[in-house]
Amino acid sequence: NKKIKTALDEIKRGSSEIIDEDKILFLLKNYYSNGTQYFVKAGFDPTASDLHLGHTVLLHKLATFQKYGGIVQFLIGDFTAIIGDPTGKSETRNKLSKEQVLDYAKSYKEQVFKILDIDKTQIVYNSDWLGKLNSYEFIDLLSKRTVARMLEKDDFEKRFKSNKDIALYEFVYPLFQGYDSVYLKSDIEIGGVDQKFNLLMGRYLQRSYNTNKEQAILMMPLLEGMDGVNKMSKSLNNYIGIFENANTMFAKIMSISDELMWKYYELLSSISLENIDVIKKDVTSGLLHPKLAKENLAVEIVEIYHNGLGENAKKEFDNVFKKNSLPTDIKEHKAVKGDWICKILVDCSIVESSSQARRDIKQGAIKLNGDKIIDENINIESGEYILQKGKKKFIKLKVCK
Amino acid sequence: NKKIKTALDEIKRGSSEIIDEDKILFLLKNYYSNGTQYFVKAGFDPTASDLHLGHTVLLHKLATFQKYGGIVQFLIGDFTAIIGDPTGKSETRNKLSKEQVLDYAKSYKEQVFKILDIDKTQIVYNSDWLGKLNSYEFIDLLSKRTVARMLEKDDFEKRFKSNKDIALYEFVYPLFQGYDSVYLKSDIEIGGVDQKFNLLMGRYLQRSYNTNKEQAILMMPLLEGMDGVNKMSKSLNNYIGIFENANTMFAKIMSISDELMWKYYELLSSISLENIDVIKKDVTSGLLHPKLAKENLAVEIVEIYHNGLGENAKKEFDNVFKKNSLPTDIKEHKAVKGDWICKILVDCSIVESSSQARRDIKQGAIKLNGDKIIDENINIESGEYILQKGKKKFIKLKVCK
Repeated sequence: NKKIKTALDEIKRGSSEIIDEDKILFLLKNYYSNGTQYFVKAGFDPTASDLHLGHTVLLHKLATFQKYGGIVQFLIGDFTAIIGDPTGKSETRNKLSKEQVLDYAKSYKEQVFKILDIDKTQIVYNSDWLGKLNSYEFIDLLSKRTVARMLEKDDFEKRFKSNKDIALYEFVYPLFQGYDSVYLKSDIEIGGVDQKFNLLMGRYLQRSYNTNKEQAILMMPLLEGMDGVNKMSKSLNNYIGIFENANTMFAKIMSISDELMWKYYELLSSISLENIDVIKKDVTSGLLHPKLAKENLAVEIVEIYHNGLGENAKKEFDNVFKKNSLPTDIKEHKAVKGDWICKILVDCSIVESSSQARRDIKQGAIKLNGDKIIDENINIESGEYILQKGKKKFIKLKVCK
Repeated sequence: NKKIKTALDEIKRGSSEIIDEDKILFLLKNYYSNGTQYFVKAGFDPTASDLHLGHTVLLHKLATFQKYGGIVQFLIGDFTAIIGDPTGKSETRNKLSKEQVLDYAKSYKEQVFKILDIDKTQIVYNSDWLGKLNSYEFIDLLSKRTVARMLEKDDFEKRFKSNKDIALYEFVYPLFQGYDSVYLKSDIEIGGVDQKFNLLMGRYLQRSYNTNKEQAILMMPLLEGMDGVNKMSKSLNNYIGIFENANTMFAKIMSISDELMWKYYELLSSISLENIDVIKKDVTSGLLHPKLAKENLAVEIVEIYHNGLGENAKKEFDNVFKKNSLPTDIKEHKAVKGDWICKILVDCSIVESSSQARRDIKQGAIKLNGDKIIDENINIESGEYILQKGKKKFIKLKVCK
């Protein structure tokens, strides 16, 4: 019984909303009493090759389910990705080609087993069934819902009311996602809070197709990016990519606020709730400096994607910032990709002239992410850097595309 | 040139609206200069087994095209019939089964060659291509139009605004009808005025799929039933069915107003415009009694469905009404199928009691459609009759199911 309570607590951890929690409890009881496993579905539309930590929130939740009897149905939406999820979109997207989608799908697969247990994961592609629907089955699916009910979906409603186009095929997306649950006979589906309409569609269609399943739903919040305000996204440049190298990843995690740190602990680590509580108490009581708690988190996360490099990344980070010499408040400066390094040094007032910048670089006084700059003629690539002169002048440099 | 003018006049005869008349002219010129034929599509959804004259308006128009170079694409919408055309419908219809649809389709086929030239007709079933669309092609089709554009369709808009359901699959109907034109490479499509949205969809999709065709459109009015007011329809009981026997058909046609007669001449006969003009002039000048013009029309129409029986039906009709003894104003009486004949005779005040009715029948004084009733115990079948006692008492008897 204590086991079931712990399991349920870990499953609910960080979630925004649960529909039919009783069913989850029932599945857990069943698992602990006779070992019966159950199916937890999560769909991923491979629509981008560069994944970031925001994408991994669901993976961590799936991993949690795997600890407590869940078999993960890791659904790669290679069919639906061709349409593209209209959720949260204010206009019709361009359709992706099948090749692009399969390319992206490959890069997804390479990453997921850094978090998921391969023995408890079924990777499935929805083109395997949706791609084979014949027109009669297609029409049957379309007969399950009315136009008005589809327009109840938030983003559709907004677009409709503001006279923005909704392509007919976008209307079908939620039905497809729901049909996946029918086909897979899922017991639980998890997704982001913004997916509520689509997740409920699965539950509705399972009923409507007279399957004897009706999935429970668990929704996770959208992860804020480094700024702690906006949803992590590439376009807002507040993201931590899972393909970034260990040092960059570490430094980026160290840059988040203390408040956000606890959310990352909850959503992006597999440290148990119990242990997180201990850390939290230690920080509150002053036993543990927040910076150390953050380092702990950063090592933990870096280890997931760069096994064995966590501690090293921490050391590198310390080197860059010369152990505590890093001011608490570093000014930020924005530059554009391709800018000349000396121009940037002048613009952000680290030096007074570009000739001074050249001299400083030649003397090895300027560092980028802790490494001396050797060539005074370099042009900067896009990304985030710590730019440093001597031991006192620091600039957080953001270079946009 | 005079030939082309005549052809165009006959083609336009009775039509409500034409889109791209220039194209029709072009096709005619082409036909008369080098014999090139062209494709005229009309779609028929087999959704009822009892066809009436309202359904034949398009057939007559197709026959006209055949006279002037058109190859008819007689499309049996066996696929679309499963959905059902939502045009004019105020609510979602029940879907038909495939078996029902094929049954109806069979009865269509048996009838059409009473009007169409079999050598210039291709009978096609849209299940042959629509039934084979795979999900990718289906999505592609759905990508051609937006939700808002579909809601512009009159009936959809009305239902949407009054919060009546529109099933998603109904939305797809116009796209299917349009896709038929893409597949068939039609040059012209004809349909009822209420079909404008669907007909234009064909033209739009032909362009959108980059075919090098763009169909002209010819729309026909909806045929009024015998009442001269409402659209001919079974449910309004103002219809003339093409399976009805020659005598009933003849009598029903004789019952229409003089005004409606000219519309029937135009839409339901293959008498040339030139000859219709002659008849019209004769009636106007008093040379020809309207009743004779109507008999002429009735013979013409009966001959289509009951070859060789037209003149005979006319004779029978005259017998029933004893040459001019029929009063101009016959009262109507309604009865219900299965009613006892003697009860009816009392109800409509032809006799005073059922015993009187029995006596009259035994004496041969009561006639139904001109034939003496022999058995005083009969129960009446549904249909329309002239019930008569002696030479003066007439009742138009309508027996509902």
